[in-house]
Amino acid sequence: MAARLAESLATTDEFAELFSDESVLQAMLDFEAALARAEASVGIMPQAAAEKIAAAAKAHFFNATAISHDALRAGTAGIPLVKALTERVSASDSAAAAFVHLGATSQDVADTALVLVLKRAQSIFKRDLASLETALHGLAEKHANTVMLGRTLMQVAPPVTFGLKVAGWLGSIQRSHRRLNGSFADALVVQFGGASGTLAALGQQGIVVGHAIAHELGLAYPDAPWHTHRDRLAAMLCDCGVLTGSLGKMARDISLLMQNEIGEVAEPGGTGRGGSSTMPHKHNPIGCSLTLAAAYRVPGLVATFLSGMTQEHERGTGGWQAEWPTVAALVQSTGLAIASMTEVAEGLSVNSEKMRANIEATHGSIFAEKAMMVLGQKLGRDTAHKLLEQATRKSIAENRRLSEVLAEIPEIAACLDAETLQNFEDPGKYLGVADEFRKRLLSTPKPGSPKREASK
Amino acid sequence: MAARLAESLATTDEFAELFSDESVLQAMLDFEAALARAEASVGIMPQAAAEKIAAAAKAHFFNATAISHDALRAGTAGIPLVKALTERVSASDSAAAAFVHLGATSQDVADTALVLVLKRAQSIFKRDLASLETALHGLAEKHANTVMLGRTLMQVAPPVTFGLKVAGWLGSIQRSHRRLNGSFADALVVQFGGASGTLAALGQQGIVVGHAIAHELGLAYPDAPWHTHRDRLAAMLCDCGVLTGSLGKMARDISLLMQNEIGEVAEPGGTGRGGSSTMPHKHNPIGCSLTLAAAYRVPGLVATFLSGMTQEHERGTGGWQAEWPTVAALVQSTGLAIASMTEVAEGLSVNSEKMRANIEATHGSIFAEKAMMVLGQKLGRDTAHKLLEQATRKSIAENRRLSEVLAEIPEIAACLDAETLQNFEDPGKYLGVADEFRKRLLSTPKPGSPKREASK
Amino acid sequence: MAARLAESLATTDEFAELFSDESVLQAMLDFEAALARAEASVGIMPQAAAEKIAAAAKAHFFNATAISHDALRAGTAGIPLVKALTERVSASDSAAAAFVHLGATSQDVADTALVLVLKRAQSIFKRDLASLETALHGLAEKHANTVMLGRTLMQVAPPVTFGLKVAGWLGSIQRSHRRLNGSFADALVVQFGGASGTLAALGQQGIVVGHAIAHELGLAYPDAPWHTHRDRLAAMLCDCGVLTGSLGKMARDISLLMQNEIGEVAEPGGTGRGGSSTMPHKHNPIGCSLTLAAAYRVPGLVATFLSGMTQEHERGTGGWQAEWPTVAALVQSTGLAIASMTEVAEGLSVNSEKMRANIEATHGSIFAEKAMMVLGQKLGRDTAHKLLEQATRKSIAENRRLSEVLAEIPEIAACLDAETLQNFEDPGKYLGVADEFRKRLLSTPKPGSPKREASK
Amino acid sequence: MAARLAESLATTDEFAELFSDESVLQAMLDFEAALARAEASVGIMPQAAAEKIAAAAKAHFFNATAISHDALRAGTAGIPLVKALTERVSASDSAAAAFVHLGATSQDVADTALVLVLKRAQSIFKRDLASLETALHGLAEKHANTVMLGRTLMQVAPPVTFGLKVAGWLGSIQRSHRRLNGSFADALVVQFGGASGTLAALGQQGIVVGHAIAHELGLAYPDAPWHTHRDRLAAMLCDCGVLTGSLGKMARDISLLMQNEIGEVAEPGGTGRGGSSTMPHKHNPIGCSLTLAAAYRVPGLVATFLSGMTQEHERGTGGWQAEWPTVAALVQSTGLAIASMTEVAEGLSVNSEKMRANIEATHGSIFAEKAMMVLGQKLGRDTAHKLLEQATRKSIAENRRLSEVLAEIPEIAACLDAETLQNFEDPGKYLGVADEFRKRLLSTPKPGSPKREASK
Repeated sequence: MAARLAESLATTDEFAELFSDESVLQAMLDFEAALARAEASVGIMPQAAAEKIAAAAKAHFFNATAISHDALRAGTAGIPLVKALTERVSASDSAAAAFVHLGATSQDVADTALVLVLKRAQSIFKRDLASLETALHGLAEKHANTVMLGRTLMQVAPPVTFGLKVAGWLGSIQRSHRRLNGSFADALVVQFGGASGTLAALGQQGIVVGHAIAHELGLAYPDAPWHTHRDRLAAMLCDCGVLTGSLGKMARDISLLMQNEIGEVAEPGGTGRGGSSTMPHKHNPIGCSLTLAAAYRVPGLVATFLSGMTQEHERGTGGWQAEWPTVAALVQSTGLAIASMTEVAEGLSVNSEKMRANIEATHGSIFAEKAMMVLGQKLGRDTAHKLLEQATRKSIAENRRLSEVLAEIPEIAACLDAETLQNFEDPGKYLGVADEFRKRLLSTPKPGSPKREASK
Repeated sequence: MAARLAESLATTDEFAELFSDESVLQAMLDFEAALARAEASVGIMPQAAAEKIAAAAKAHFFNATAISHDALRAGTAGIPLVKALTERVSASDSAAAAFVHLGATSQDVADTALVLVLKRAQSIFKRDLASLETALHGLAEKHANTVMLGRTLMQVAPPVTFGLKVAGWLGSIQRSHRRLNGSFADALVVQFGGASGTLAALGQQGIVVGHAIAHELGLAYPDAPWHTHRDRLAAMLCDCGVLTGSLGKMARDISLLMQNEIGEVAEPGGTGRGGSSTMPHKHNPIGCSLTLAAAYRVPGLVATFLSGMTQEHERGTGGWQAEWPTVAALVQSTGLAIASMTEVAEGLSVNSEKMRANIEATHGSIFAEKAMMVLGQKLGRDTAHKLLEQATRKSIAENRRLSEVLAEIPEIAACLDAETLQNFEDPGKYLGVADEFRKRLLSTPKPGSPKREASK
Repeated sequence: MAARLAESLATTDEFAELFSDESVLQAMLDFEAALARAEASVGIMPQAAAEKIAAAAKAHFFNATAISHDALRAGTAGIPLVKALTERVSASDSAAAAFVHLGATSQDVADTALVLVLKRAQSIFKRDLASLETALHGLAEKHANTVMLGRTLMQVAPPVTFGLKVAGWLGSIQRSHRRLNGSFADALVVQFGGASGTLAALGQQGIVVGHAIAHELGLAYPDAPWHTHRDRLAAMLCDCGVLTGSLGKMARDISLLMQNEIGEVAEPGGTGRGGSSTMPHKHNPIGCSLTLAAAYRVPGLVATFLSGMTQEHERGTGGWQAEWPTVAALVQSTGLAIASMTEVAEGLSVNSEKMRANIEATHGSIFAEKAMMVLGQKLGRDTAHKLLEQATRKSIAENRRLSEVLAEIPEIAACLDAETLQNFEDPGKYLGVADEFRKRLLSTPKPGSPKREASK
Repeated sequence: MAARLAESLATTDEFAELFSDESVLQAMLDFEAALARAEASVGIMPQAAAEKIAAAAKAHFFNATAISHDALRAGTAGIPLVKALTERVSASDSAAAAFVHLGATSQDVADTALVLVLKRAQSIFKRDLASLETALHGLAEKHANTVMLGRTLMQVAPPVTFGLKVAGWLGSIQRSHRRLNGSFADALVVQFGGASGTLAALGQQGIVVGHAIAHELGLAYPDAPWHTHRDRLAAMLCDCGVLTGSLGKMARDISLLMQNEIGEVAEPGGTGRGGSSTMPHKHNPIGCSLTLAAAYRVPGLVATFLSGMTQEHERGTGGWQAEWPTVAALVQSTGLAIASMTEVAEGLSVNSEKMRANIEATHGSIFAEKAMMVLGQKLGRDTAHKLLEQATRKSIAENRRLSEVLAEIPEIAACLDAETLQNFEDPGKYLGVADEFRKRLLSTPKPGSPKREASK
């Protein structure tokens, strides 16, 4: 009863595996094993019992479908999982079985399992983000002087460089990467509180045991259990949402630039990538559309998580139960967007000639801003605006360069000498501080470099 | 790589099966078989080829995981599915293979498959809603005279009947059921438009073939293809969202009434239901918490679908690709909420004595409204309000009935005779038109009764 | 302390006025006046008192800012409004003052006021939708034969007609209009239930009074109060969301077609419309961007309303309090989207020459689908696909028509005679049943035509 | 045409003022004045012109309603604002008028104005959060030993302390406060990029001017313009969303504890707070319901902002235009939630006797966990679970203490001596490490303390 196909555009294989039954089951069992070992280490249970429990805590011993079925009856997967583990331990050592899950509550196992899965997600994110950032850095350097149209409200505007455009994408991705480093560090904490979050069943040993579990699992130990305080997870998921939004912006730009009539960049093709079953000429922006799909999905998922935060007292009634599928979808969407944009960035073709040609096709109208500025100060803004608007229309209607048309208008010709007029026509001369901005964006220290993280 | 466990609180087994690989794969193949037969029926392909294709169109012949993997490369599951089907047909009949998927586009198969799956979802919804409505109708009749506290802003208020409360739940559920009948009828239409939605590859035969496919699959035929017009699906999913909201309201009420300190109703227990791994006394509102979880999830999913509606030109770049997992989660959540509330309604225990006792515990303060009305007209609203507020506080502080306290206040005693005062204390006498409202809610014709549907 | 400027891109003046203090205040007062008259009509209060109350119930007598301030303290605007009204009536007739708001609760006035405001919103929607539908109908007829590129995933595809494209927009808008007619009819019901929704304070007269209020206000009377059953409002707001999604799709298409490099359509300019402060050449898609902004905002607002539906018992704690600003924003966004697209549709320039030129620029690659079909059956799909892919690439690389390139490939030339090849090149011949679909879309009865509405 | 009333439950007066026309207008004008002075400082315009512009840049000179109206035509408030300012300057000095807005684009003024408004919002947040944290800290210390029921899934559970509960609220609020400090610091950056984000109109002086504007306005200067890179704002708004979620959790808890049947805490009353127009006995949780309303609204608003992030090229078509009302609503909701919970925390009544009584009423069933643990190890888990379940049911049915019932069961009596049994009954002895967790939560350094911020 797998559901890979219904989600085939929603996750890479790697992230599908991360939330697979085997992966989730093992994460839950890892908590139980760590709990047993931690309790043995402080003498709450015999060392031998802990080893029996740890030995039984292997995913392949259990039936995830049956546990899933019972989870819906129990209201949590923790209960049937503990039951199944106890039965397995009991089969060989009934004394040890009495120590399974001792002092913990079902949410302890479910939440810690989630955190363990998220820790693996983070390492995939980091790996792919590093590749993406490297690819974008390279593009931004290579195309420092590749001039292209600026476009505002999807209309042509004064020129930019492709290097600046890429640096803008990179800047926002790096900022999100840095935020994620911080929020993952906050969120990767063990959950261990027992029935009401006081670890009462363990007397005064609760915190020692908790530290030992955290150590065993490679997680941090929080100030207190967080059964109904979901802000750390929420913040981390929000950061996923923001990152996916930035990746979506990059995908939007590339999909627009790939339109046949614009043709300035192209996603890499690759086997099975972007073709059409019936239209052999097609080269679809698949990576962009998958990333945009992720960007469409992620906001609603973030909203779901946030709206589920108002959890009642010591354990929630509904808000918590809504979390797992929401987190899974959100992490998978983010992972897919990162991976897709990495592939796109690494293989992007850039057609700088088409960029130049598209500028040419505007006949210079995009330089009207500059003319406006100069003329505005000489003729007054209103007069200048009217004259320029007329000239621009004429230039378009007659398919002639704006500079020529301007030169024919006496009021304007009086203000602008021919040389100035021609200058307007060279896009490379009208870039302002584009390259300074590009360099500033590239000079930010990389996320994950030791210095930054240490200072958190 | 199944992901049942991560979604174990998000779907019943039945709905997990509905979106399983086998189910989705078969729905896609059903489209291909119907397309082949339809084209054969008008002479576009030989009958024998159609039969070969139909014979090959069985889910168990194909590897859903491989198709899922390739789908992510292709940007749609349609492309690898068609490739795999073509290969299978080709193995036995290469001529027939050339007719596979003829004239259709990959979105035709994906969208029609989705509609086929939704049609099955509808029939499960209808079955469960009928049970739920029957159960609620029974409760609303049985408890016509069961008096309980009204509660506004979670504070005690003048009494209602449990019958009215249930009738209110039922009314909203029936309205949503009726809306869903209409929106499902609109949405269950075949998708068949070919590359650009004109069926150009089929010349003038497109509409005839489309009708035949629809007939074959038991779907309606729309005015035109709807590749980027997703309003029918959106409206149906919104109706799921509204229904789940109403079910969530019912679950919220029941979970509040189940609090130990209130104890007026209880969910049925049943095997594996609602216990705690460590707290044998617990009887948790599992059905309610699952339903509330669905109610937390559904709004974000509706938002995702709506925000993906702005799909570009003849085929979308991102919006469409985001749909399948969103629809699956939304339908599964709705189905889970219906099933959970059906189980709850069918087995609900109602403790009318506790309801009565909770009224008693207010010492009559909830009847202050009536006293306010009478006194307001005799003493002026401000004076009356002040006197009553004092009396109410005194009644609570001294743990005495409000009627007694009121009788001791001369200004009030002068306005209200003893009999009137005692009347205030009988909650059954202060129900206004509660029973008329209850009856009006119950008298609405049932959704799905032939007359209503005919008039759509 | 008005906030028009912060919302200046979010609403037309007309919808800003609809939710203005004066409008909302008057709607609340209209309820109080209607309540008084209704109660007088059945003898609950003297006719003279009702007239005093009605005479005082004029918005300009009251200070909306002060009421707003106190509303936040009271948790509802109903309480300070009733207090202020009582004071005003009291100043001239203290006996009449005791009858103000008699038997009603503060949510009765707030909810009924909301419904009254929504009724006015509906009439504006209907007026503008009628204009929009007329404009689109005209465009769809005029451009029945205007051939343009189909575009899928933002890449060129076989041709469509602009008439079909417009008819697609129209179809989805008409469907949403029809849904809205139904859901408005359901939602425009009076709210009148008193403290706990039983109208207990009015004894057995509650329903008669309720009917009279509804009659007075031109609203329908529901089966029962709906203080915590918000499904009717939710369904109507969802329908707004779906409509705005369809309008957003239209806006997306037009904004894409307006890109300078594509240049197939243009929004009307008009005074102050779409210019740039610094770039006189600009002609921005303002109507589209406002509509898209609405389409970005509406899904989250729908989600908010849905997530607030789980309201507790007889009066909610948070869910209800979140509604007014959400409804206002949602209705204003929808109204703005309708108005913007109406202006765009009524003044749209269509450049059919540019449409033709853009087709030409593809060198015929968009007809590869047809070639694929013919060749697939003669050469086998794989061979055909490979040959065509090569030919298409060659055609693009050499800037030559695909038909020429195809004619040079012996395997292909053997399958396709020259005439067939040339046919591929005439876009008007490769439209399939585009015009039938267009006609089917246009032949749907108009929303609001008497027959359809009667059958609801 | 103000809309205070429709939003009266959505904002405090202070935050209404923050987004008022005067406030927004002045923020826009502050940018224009700062721009003029900055350009004068580097010689781009005469000092005198800058002073003229700055002198004219006062909100009261302008008509916000007219500017709002024109903004909708222009697609941004920047255009009519600049026009109006130019006209005003022109009236006294036409030469100076030519320098208004020189080199900037309309989004520069709108975005920087938004940031200026947000900077003021931050200072209100900080002030109120400091008060809230102080109040919660005090409660958490005062009630270190106030024992109360734990409650999981809204059912009674082993005890906690009220001090721990409050410390849990405080912990999550402080974490969000700290996140907000970081994300505000990132987001409070000037926007200044000119038409395409290259400041081309200013030649090489753009960055110097930008720094000067930032200095003038007390904002930081970013690496580059961020016209279509909205991640900094998004992250800050997400942090608002997370904080409001945590405040909503606190409000949910308090509203539940305020239920009459539970009665453990109460919001402060205060003038006009929480009464009912018709029910003098009512003491409604107004602060909680306003906070929960905010918590219902905020997730959808966060989703809107995130989904609008995919902005096209150098200036967005729809995503950007959706921002202002979304940000305003989100900031106002957050501010209202903080202010409401501050008032609630500062005036909260805590009824520790009722807390104790509610524990008593469970007859000791909440200690079954401990009995389960001890018995589980002696009798085996299954046997222990069954025995305890029976005993618990008996205790409830017979209205007797669980310890008594347990003592009568021979298998259990054999395992637990009488003293142990009695221990179970003292809630203060079954608190595990509750107080250690409370102390750990309180010992976190306060947000905003110099050391933490410096290390960011």
